[in-house]
Amino acid sequence: MEKELLEDYRFGRQQLIEIWGHACAVAVTKAFPLPSLPRRQPTLLVACGPAQTGAIGLVCARHLRSFDYEPTIFYPKRSPDPLHRDFTTQCERMDIPFLSYLPTEVQLINDAYNAVVDAVLGAEGEGTEGTEPCAATLATLRHVRIPIVSLDVPSGWRAGPGDSGDIRPAVLVSLAAPKAAARRFQGQRHFLAGRFVPEELRRKFGIRAPPYPGSDCVVALGPPGGAPGDTGTPQ
Amino acid sequence: MEKELLEDYRFGRQQLIEIWGHACAVAVTKAFPLPSLPRRQPTLLVACGPAQTGAIGLVCARHLRSFDYEPTIFYPKRSPDPLHRDFTTQCERMDIPFLSYLPTEVQLINDAYNAVVDAVLGAEGEGTEGTEPCAATLATLRHVRIPIVSLDVPSGWRAGPGDSGDIRPAVLVSLAAPKAAARRFQGQRHFLAGRFVPEELRRKFGIRAPPYPGSDCVVALGPPGGAPGDTGTPQ
Repeated sequence: MEKELLEDYRFGRQQLIEIWGHACAVAVTKAFPLPSLPRRQPTLLVACGPAQTGAIGLVCARHLRSFDYEPTIFYPKRSPDPLHRDFTTQCERMDIPFLSYLPTEVQLINDAYNAVVDAVLGAEGEGTEGTEPCAATLATLRHVRIPIVSLDVPSGWRAGPGDSGDIRPAVLVSLAAPKAAARRFQGQRHFLAGRFVPEELRRKFGIRAPPYPGSDCVVALGPPGGAPGDTGTPQ
Repeated sequence: MEKELLEDYRFGRQQLIEIWGHACAVAVTKAFPLPSLPRRQPTLLVACGPAQTGAIGLVCARHLRSFDYEPTIFYPKRSPDPLHRDFTTQCERMDIPFLSYLPTEVQLINDAYNAVVDAVLGAEGEGTEGTEPCAATLATLRHVRIPIVSLDVPSGWRAGPGDSGDIRPAVLVSLAAPKAAARRFQGQRHFLAGRFVPEELRRKFGIRAPPYPGSDCVVALGPPGGAPGDTGTPQ
């Protein structure tokens, strides 16, 4: 579908990354409203991978900052793509802190942040989840006890049956359309960020979703095991 | 400020136009919620000029479509800029109708649409408002009786004292920061679409605004004559 958006509908990559990153940030505000956070500071860790999912994470972090959260970015392998570099600069210039390394002592992460945004691999991970520095990041994320928000596809998940070593996100944000792996999602909240998707493409790809409320860019999908068409009332 | 966003913060033009167009569409949903529209069909006319304001209008129309409005675009002088062409293609592929001419009989416009979005000139108008086809469009907009939503600066307004022949928008959406002309705005609702603007730039340019509610990308500013700091309760 992304190919059709880019080629037939002439969406731009910068435009899509901006739309998705913004929508992911909005989903985070719905899953973890500021007053609900367990820690006094509204801290979030945003782990960004080397490709497009990582760029979406950067945009998500920027919008979270404008929504009064305190994101910290971990972006160990920076993309040389000028587009991604610009998204990085926007975060740097907005004084969002970048971690130079991820503590291997998981308890430090559990103590410092309210949640982690997993923008490491997304749907691009197939076959690369074992390479550094992503492997080390995922090894850490597997053990954190604070909630994980995964963008599009939980990083490291394979298309086939799940591996018990997988990370287990509490929240999944599907971009444009839920991917096959979303069927294995067992967390609490599943959002679809696809309001901008033209009606014709939604029909073509058989995307069924409850109506988006108001002018929201995301909609909550039914919880795992929920009735078809369930509008995903918060758990 | 736009220069600093582009050069120092490395925002992209595609990104800014997308952010602003989306915010303008959200402002329209706040000023004219679907259930409040006087006509049975949620029709809107979006008049787009030849430069960046027109491109923002195209993005606004696309998002209005996804918010279940029925926008129709009038875009008589198309920009050759490939970026603007892509925004046009997105609208065309989403089956948003384009008018090939604007009825000179104003009553036809009053009868067909609930409101008009003025994305003709914005802040770029100085000195070009007399050239065709903008002049004809503005001549028509001066006489319509349905509400006008102007983007950034009402088209044709000069920086200096107002001309009695000016269009008189009911709604103004200021992009990033209110422009000087906004002080002469006498309509009902004034929105600021600048949540994405980095804090440092807001301070540098002295932008004061009430807090943006929730994850909203626009905030209502006080009505004309309202108390300073008035949060712009709907009229």
